[in-house]
Amino acid sequence: MNIVVLSGGVGGSRFIRGLLAATTPDDQVTVVANTADDIWLFGLRVCPDLDTVMYTLGAGIDTERGWGRTDETWNAKAELGAYDVPEAWFGLGDRDLATHLVRTEMLRSGAGLAAATERLCARWAPGTDLERIRLLPMTEDEVETWISTTVDDAPAEIHFQEFWIRHHAGVPVHAVTQRGIESSSPAPGVLQAIADADVIVLPPSNPIVSVGPILDVPGIRDALRSSDAPVVGVSPVIGGGAVRGMADQLLAGLGIENSAAAVGLRHGVLDGWLLDTADAHHVAQLEAGGVTARAVPLWMSDDATTRQLAVDTLALAAELCRG
Amino acid sequence: MNIVVLSGGVGGSRFIRGLLAATTPDDQVTVVANTADDIWLFGLRVCPDLDTVMYTLGAGIDTERGWGRTDETWNAKAELGAYDVPEAWFGLGDRDLATHLVRTEMLRSGAGLAAATERLCARWAPGTDLERIRLLPMTEDEVETWISTTVDDAPAEIHFQEFWIRHHAGVPVHAVTQRGIESSSPAPGVLQAIADADVIVLPPSNPIVSVGPILDVPGIRDALRSSDAPVVGVSPVIGGGAVRGMADQLLAGLGIENSAAAVGLRHGVLDGWLLDTADAHHVAQLEAGGVTARAVPLWMSDDATTRQLAVDTLALAAELCRG
Repeated sequence: MNIVVLSGGVGGSRFIRGLLAATTPDDQVTVVANTADDIWLFGLRVCPDLDTVMYTLGAGIDTERGWGRTDETWNAKAELGAYDVPEAWFGLGDRDLATHLVRTEMLRSGAGLAAATERLCARWAPGTDLERIRLLPMTEDEVETWISTTVDDAPAEIHFQEFWIRHHAGVPVHAVTQRGIESSSPAPGVLQAIADADVIVLPPSNPIVSVGPILDVPGIRDALRSSDAPVVGVSPVIGGGAVRGMADQLLAGLGIENSAAAVGLRHGVLDGWLLDTADAHHVAQLEAGGVTARAVPLWMSDDATTRQLAVDTLALAAELCRG
Repeated sequence: MNIVVLSGGVGGSRFIRGLLAATTPDDQVTVVANTADDIWLFGLRVCPDLDTVMYTLGAGIDTERGWGRTDETWNAKAELGAYDVPEAWFGLGDRDLATHLVRTEMLRSGAGLAAATERLCARWAPGTDLERIRLLPMTEDEVETWISTTVDDAPAEIHFQEFWIRHHAGVPVHAVTQRGIESSSPAPGVLQAIADADVIVLPPSNPIVSVGPILDVPGIRDALRSSDAPVVGVSPVIGGGAVRGMADQLLAGLGIENSAAAVGLRHGVLDGWLLDTADAHHVAQLEAGGVTARAVPLWMSDDATTRQLAVDTLALAAELCRG
């Protein structure tokens, strides 16, 4: 079975681990990761979602934090602060820095982000879950998410990372723009993977800054719609609130209803959608919108529940294939 | 008094500390540092001599090693090794990395190396010896020292840093080339500092890869010759061997006599030269070559002997002014 996952960082990575536990090595899993929250920092190209997927599946992640490297130290960051560098609020760990150095050097030498990602993964894959997936960036073009906000009573345009890491999503959201997305194109391999897919999965990732941008890369939404494979997703919203991250603030700022149904319907590409049992009352609304919905436990509390969520996702896909 | 020092890294920095102890804040000390052993590593511009001077005078140096930062960690380096990066032999510490990130970002944004150096020094200067000097790169153009050698029985051209850090100067030296030096020009401020100097000092730095390149930047040697200020130097060779570093191997490879006299005469710009008391028998040879020579203790074993060496250097300069 060919499975394509359109993934953000933390939630997506966790879901993919469950998916690998629920499938066999004969199943081909391609992960198309969001790159719209990438950022240039200190001259380095930082790709948070690609790296979170790579570190999580490659057993290099700090499992407590859910991002960044195990056994991390922060001495370069402290020194950047001492040099009074404006972006020193972004926490690049010393081990993590090496990843960005290798990637940036490749990009500057003319390689694409897909090749750079492959090179980085080659280090982590052997003997880990990463060996079982192919990790692709959604695009090799630079797309960046910017937030229109108000900082110190003045209107401001800030990079999504500044909104999230520096301001902890504590400033208002007037608008969200994915700069560069209109002129971007899918990275090599993405459209082919979608065309070859038996199942396409949207894991429980942020709808505005993770899954949304992937769908908005010109060509990807059309490829999903023209694919024979069912597109099934898992709601990142449970009981009217995002499981983690800053989706609540983004949805509120954009005036989007913070519900499992509204978020699912908004994607516009779903054949099936899993809601949490707490949101079972939203099933009818989704089905009225043409999306087959099932209410199952969504909390990925441990390996067993995470695996079961993947099993439920594949079961919904199978049901849609038969239907 | 305006003092200009043409300096390499470790020996030069130590001498400058003595010079500051031997002078008063009314004396203006300009340090023109060698940049010919600079290197691009992992996309970062690394300037070993500039940084050694900055860290040493700015109280950031690891005094045991004589280079790099205090309380340094090496996690990024270990990770670069794990990514199998070819240049992982070069030991960039985590704290040190911040310096290269700030500098490289400035250079990529169009700033010159002089401005980048000034920016970096602004962090270290307050309250330290660095506050008393102006640190200039010899040039803002990229000059790199390459060694023609033999590695694994095959001819090879390697960057000086690879020769020194990776091979520990353990491969033969057939030739030394400062790539780019013919088309380089002195950095802003260098010629003016020389023109305004009352004393010009060559500290005990490597004659081939530190002091030599500074003199070879087109315009600098002429400026020294046309200056009214005496040019006085301190031999880096004592008793027929370099005090530290790899000058012995370089001199041998180039067929240059490894003596305090030969090294001094070769510079071609000296009015005065200090030899160690162990080399007093070379005084006559130097004076026959038109260089006033004095034999004094050259070992900079502690603060007192280092300060005394600076006192002796300034005394020789004063003698030449009166002469």
